[in-house]
Amino acid sequence: MIGRLNHVAIAVPDLAAAADQYRNTLGATVRAPQDEPDHGVTVVFIELPNTKIELLYPLGDNSPIKGFLDKNPSGGIHHMCFEVEDILAARDTLKAQGARVLGDGEPKIGAHGKPVLFLHPKDFNGCLIELEQV
Amino acid sequence: MIGRLNHVAIAVPDLAAAADQYRNTLGATVRAPQDEPDHGVTVVFIELPNTKIELLYPLGDNSPIKGFLDKNPSGGIHHMCFEVEDILAARDTLKAQGARVLGDGEPKIGAHGKPVLFLHPKDFNGCLIELEQV
Repeated sequence: MIGRLNHVAIAVPDLAAAADQYRNTLGATVRAPQDEPDHGVTVVFIELPNTKIELLYPLGDNSPIKGFLDKNPSGGIHHMCFEVEDILAARDTLKAQGARVLGDGEPKIGAHGKPVLFLHPKDFNGCLIELEQV
Repeated sequence: MIGRLNHVAIAVPDLAAAADQYRNTLGATVRAPQDEPDHGVTVVFIELPNTKIELLYPLGDNSPIKGFLDKNPSGGIHHMCFEVEDILAARDTLKAQGARVLGDGEPKIGAHGKPVLFLHPKDFNGCLIELEQV
């Protein structure tokens, strides 16, 4: 069911510093920041040859990243995103096997303009998993 | 400097259950477990089309994963590994910019039989980063 690893998302306490570090210290290709008000984050994508790193920084008062950064002030790996061909079929298969989908269970439009869902970390070895339909 | 994302490593509290979940629930290609006594872990590689997930489980009494699982009993994302062409050049460049290398600073031979180093999470947004020379 799962295909490519679309990205690994890292919540960071200083977006400019983190972007600068990936660009200048680690020598990666770093894109411009983009605000995602619907998701409560500003994101910076880092393009690796085979996948992406997504730097996440809170945007607005109700950002879903804020609690994570309160608990992890240095930042940390927040989630990983797997691509699926059919997100509704994937969701139904996972739910039938007891996995919990976060929110109301309906796909939202993610940072790439494609439908996404998040799976409950407690059902997946403590890892927050995003599924993105490609 | 950094190239491909070689793998994302996940520490898991039950290796057989996690491997079964990736194989049967998530439908991925899952390899046989391999013991890595030099690293204090048993690993299961999950092959995605563009990268790998590495499931980690403690092996022996001094496993470096044990403390992580004590703090995160459900498991969690433990580190991510970036490929580099020249690990000594990468290390020296990073150290010159103030990044700390874990251990004695000399590369060890990793689970793929290639030289690896780990960078201090506090210097990289709370993320443990492994560099692997390819």
